[in-house]
Amino acid sequence: MTQMEAARKGIVTEQMRKVAEDECVDVEWLLEQVASGRVAIPCNKIHMPEPIGIGEGLRTKVNANIGTSPLHSNLDEELAKLEMCIRYGADTVMDLSTGGDLDEIRIEILRRWRKPLGTVPIYQVAKELLMERKPISAMEKEHLFEVIERQARQGVDFMTVHCGITKHALELFKRSRRIGGIVSRGGSLLAMWMVANNSENPLYEHFDRLLEIASRYDVTLSLGDGMRPGALADAGDSVQWYETSVLGELTLRAWEANVQVMIEGPGHVPMHHVEAHVKMMKALCHGAPIYLLGPLTCDVAAGYDHIAAAIGGAIAASAGADFLCYVTPAEHLRLPTPEDVRVGIIASRIAAHSADIAKGVKGALRWDEQMSRARKELDWKRMYELAMDGDRAMEYRSDMRDADKGVCSMCGQFCAVAASSAVERILIEGAKGDAISDIPAECPLIQ
Amino acid sequence: MTQMEAARKGIVTEQMRKVAEDECVDVEWLLEQVASGRVAIPCNKIHMPEPIGIGEGLRTKVNANIGTSPLHSNLDEELAKLEMCIRYGADTVMDLSTGGDLDEIRIEILRRWRKPLGTVPIYQVAKELLMERKPISAMEKEHLFEVIERQARQGVDFMTVHCGITKHALELFKRSRRIGGIVSRGGSLLAMWMVANNSENPLYEHFDRLLEIASRYDVTLSLGDGMRPGALADAGDSVQWYETSVLGELTLRAWEANVQVMIEGPGHVPMHHVEAHVKMMKALCHGAPIYLLGPLTCDVAAGYDHIAAAIGGAIAASAGADFLCYVTPAEHLRLPTPEDVRVGIIASRIAAHSADIAKGVKGALRWDEQMSRARKELDWKRMYELAMDGDRAMEYRSDMRDADKGVCSMCGQFCAVAASSAVERILIEGAKGDAISDIPAECPLIQ
Repeated sequence: MTQMEAARKGIVTEQMRKVAEDECVDVEWLLEQVASGRVAIPCNKIHMPEPIGIGEGLRTKVNANIGTSPLHSNLDEELAKLEMCIRYGADTVMDLSTGGDLDEIRIEILRRWRKPLGTVPIYQVAKELLMERKPISAMEKEHLFEVIERQARQGVDFMTVHCGITKHALELFKRSRRIGGIVSRGGSLLAMWMVANNSENPLYEHFDRLLEIASRYDVTLSLGDGMRPGALADAGDSVQWYETSVLGELTLRAWEANVQVMIEGPGHVPMHHVEAHVKMMKALCHGAPIYLLGPLTCDVAAGYDHIAAAIGGAIAASAGADFLCYVTPAEHLRLPTPEDVRVGIIASRIAAHSADIAKGVKGALRWDEQMSRARKELDWKRMYELAMDGDRAMEYRSDMRDADKGVCSMCGQFCAVAASSAVERILIEGAKGDAISDIPAECPLIQ
Repeated sequence: MTQMEAARKGIVTEQMRKVAEDECVDVEWLLEQVASGRVAIPCNKIHMPEPIGIGEGLRTKVNANIGTSPLHSNLDEELAKLEMCIRYGADTVMDLSTGGDLDEIRIEILRRWRKPLGTVPIYQVAKELLMERKPISAMEKEHLFEVIERQARQGVDFMTVHCGITKHALELFKRSRRIGGIVSRGGSLLAMWMVANNSENPLYEHFDRLLEIASRYDVTLSLGDGMRPGALADAGDSVQWYETSVLGELTLRAWEANVQVMIEGPGHVPMHHVEAHVKMMKALCHGAPIYLLGPLTCDVAAGYDHIAAAIGGAIAASAGADFLCYVTPAEHLRLPTPEDVRVGIIASRIAAHSADIAKGVKGALRWDEQMSRARKELDWKRMYELAMDGDRAMEYRSDMRDADKGVCSMCGQFCAVAASSAVERILIEGAKGDAISDIPAECPLIQ
């Protein structure tokens, strides 16, 4: 049984119980959310990861993409990236490798990563064709489904499948005035195959076959947005919305087969349109969980796209997006390094957490309150513990001789926190003004 | 005459002409905006910087804070920060020095910085008292006004003056349940003086004297938010709004004296309240330009507060904030380094530019369109030119043997941009599928 089938039969699975506990929500409510498809719990029966719930009413989750490329492939580096995902709190990881021995890399990752793992199976097909010096246009449909099944058998919990790039979508694309064209890697591979072979998308044409594999292993289908806008100017065009409406149609078919689904979304969207995009997606796709890449709110932030994505992601998540795929500073420029992975995760988590506060997610604000209290006490150890990336906070304080004590080098003796406490002692406790030094006693020097 | 007085007399100054030209707006419209106070052009008659317009209907501007502290003071480092402000496009700089020879530092900065310069005069007062080993409570009012006049005479274009911390504001503060207390450095110094001496705020009590100096030099008053929330939990309390309403009252008095004004704002604000904050500020302060520090949308991002501030700043600016004070990754932890300054500027500029697109600022979207076209062409040189920080984009590409050509190491041979162009040639130009390689010809290797 898939999680969805169990929910529909009124069976509370171990995974539902764990998710309900982690999120402090009622398990009966969660069961209904899973039954209706509004929440997905990606959990391949073979991998059985620590379950993560994704969808309406839960914390916004963050995915980190790692993986090799044909130009840059090193297993140790990927495992170092995975360490970053563990240390800095990604909720899920996608292995997008396209270089080296993909099965080996995936198995090594699955061995170490205890949360849900995602992939984009067509990458492996393209890689295996490249090994034979064949272009993607030479792909056999059978090969694609064989790879999907192979990855499912290995334990992959969710897969991006670009089922919505139909022949009609490409017809709309042909008549569009897009600047950026197709920017989805998997989408462009499929489109290339389709136009070279003048054929319908096999993932659309044989969607039932895909559902059969997915339901057997309980692989969650992440219905990919192959036609997502890759430039602000392209956001919200008919190609994008047509594809999204196809994904909505396929969502219902997946749910009929008890297959869990997530809907992928843009890309690059001007910030005043982000809310509308998320709401349109939710409406067209019947409340399925929304999984966004970005959206980036400008096109010119190369080297800092994690920041543009944090702006778009925070607005999107507060409007109802459930799952943010991180964007690293390396986006549009190169494969990310482990350090890029770290920064990308934290940027997305800041967006997700900011949105969770806005959405009123239970307990979200308590964390910030604890941090603010520690800040008021100048309790640095506690601040490092509570900071989203306490290692970084400590690195920044390493110029202080005693990094756990006293004020910081921004204001030194003129520390507002210390002065405010002095003001409060006079105002509230009635201490005598001249009895209180307004220069903090502990004022460590720079190393 | 101040810019405001000139505008009210219907005189188009050289500064108004330059601002109108830079912003592609009608100069008569701009004159009315300056006359009404909705736009400020900080421009001390002695400094005469390149004019920058701040306010409704103009591009969102970005300020960078630099300056020494008692614990960390090095003129060369400050000048290195100033170089970052020049190279990475800050619109204004505030010199917040509190360590070393403040007059010397300021004069060196004024010599090199051709755009508006701001200060917080009470810092210099506190620093001069510290030199005499006196606490801030020993400040003489005369000293404060002497420093304000001295800085005006040196050419400072705008000054933060915390005029809104009245005795009543402190009474409200006393009864509040704030977690973060007073987090404004200048605000806490003034509050300390007030409670220690049981006296009214001299900047409020003698506001006319301040106006006299400001109008003589055409110093723009940045009415400081000494009581801004420094924790999400404190945002929007009665202390904050009482102070803002005092600033609104003082705005009208300043405008009567032909003194230009900006209103400073928070701080830390949950993202779903940011729009309301900006609109309340605009309403209470009669449409005066709004100058925000952040707002940070969560308290736990230490080491990455520039990202939390970019989220809040983008939402705020799209809701009507006119001027964003950058926040660097060092916020809450240490004095920023030149590299922190660079990152802080770019993060704020991403927020400002994203908001300008949302606000429909003329020409804002054209930049992104050009970038997207260069991206589609895989024209790296042009991408470096167009990127907000092209140096950083180039650094990221430095792992490629020929960083100006071909694809990137993210996708290598599976470059979506290249594949999409091939798809388009088949779809639109009717090229034969088998005549087109879907592997890009130029595929440089990693160094």
